[in-house]
Amino acid sequence: MKDLEERVQKDAIVNEGNEVDVDSIFSQYVDVNLLDEMANEWAFRFRNLKLTKIVTIESSGIALATLLAIKLNVPVVIVKKTPEFEVDDAYTARIYSHQYHQSITAYIMKQNLCRDDKVVIIDDFLANGWAAEGMISMIEESGAKVVAMGVAVEKAQKAGGQKIRAKGIQLESLSVITGVDESGKISFAE
Amino acid sequence: MKDLEERVQKDAIVNEGNEVDVDSIFSQYVDVNLLDEMANEWAFRFRNLKLTKIVTIESSGIALATLLAIKLNVPVVIVKKTPEFEVDDAYTARIYSHQYHQSITAYIMKQNLCRDDKVVIIDDFLANGWAAEGMISMIEESGAKVVAMGVAVEKAQKAGGQKIRAKGIQLESLSVITGVDESGKISFAE
Repeated sequence: MKDLEERVQKDAIVNEGNEVDVDSIFSQYVDVNLLDEMANEWAFRFRNLKLTKIVTIESSGIALATLLAIKLNVPVVIVKKTPEFEVDDAYTARIYSHQYHQSITAYIMKQNLCRDDKVVIIDDFLANGWAAEGMISMIEESGAKVVAMGVAVEKAQKAGGQKIRAKGIQLESLSVITGVDESGKISFAE
Repeated sequence: MKDLEERVQKDAIVNEGNEVDVDSIFSQYVDVNLLDEMANEWAFRFRNLKLTKIVTIESSGIALATLLAIKLNVPVVIVKKTPEFEVDDAYTARIYSHQYHQSITAYIMKQNLCRDDKVVIIDDFLANGWAAEGMISMIEESGAKVVAMGVAVEKAQKAGGQKIRAKGIQLESLSVITGVDESGKISFAE
């Protein structure tokens, strides 16, 4: 998506090791016009999937998931994070939190998923796919099926995209970063 | 708001000391139809304020803030949380995190507020108002003005509402809890 690529080029921060940080676009600030355009694109690509739930992880995917939810008229289930190891009445997965620099427990309340659910996962960024794998394992534990995943920014050189596609999940990344040159210019897949 | 009160009565968890926990309604799950109705109500009540930014704190206010942003056509600025004491290029406030059982730093990136901004704060719950006070102090540090605050659930017996109104901020709470009886029945202000 052209508008998204331009925004990433303009506002993303390129850290050491050419890590692209999109927090300023999805985590600290919500440009509703851009995000609504993205949600429209996902709603179109997912229109035939008969989705019943959107799952996202706090907090940078919530705005995107909410805008898509309006268009698909389905609820959003939010994966929460806690430093505790056990959460009553929840599906859990251990994942690494960049925000808290420690492993934490991600959880979904059991009452919010059922075995008939057809789920799309929405997230802002897909690199190694560890958070995505945690979400998929929790959703599958409930008996629900992960049918699709929508990602704002996918990093092509990392393994996450391949892992998701290999599971038969329809992955729709609205921008795919293929590299960063010495000047910090980001290149995108066609 | 009748629909919201009914949802709180049905799904909120009443903890020891009659603390009402609305996480299951705003933090773990997003019923977009209910939340969109709430955003419509705020958009109507705030229609003459010429607001330029919505500020909310991660993560339970983000869905509400995003839906209101669509209606007001203004961006959302998200207050982030970190265990670190200092954040570069940010306004900060120390607040207590119930999620992490420790004091943490709340922060707003400086680039996301300016002195001409007229701000509405959106949050799911208002009790003692500590998080709200932290947000107000950061916003005022930028030179911007907090004109209004929209809260889903206000607890009348706690001091937060009074503190906010005493600052001359237009507080619009869509439900106001006045008490909880022995059977767990929640009563609301008219």
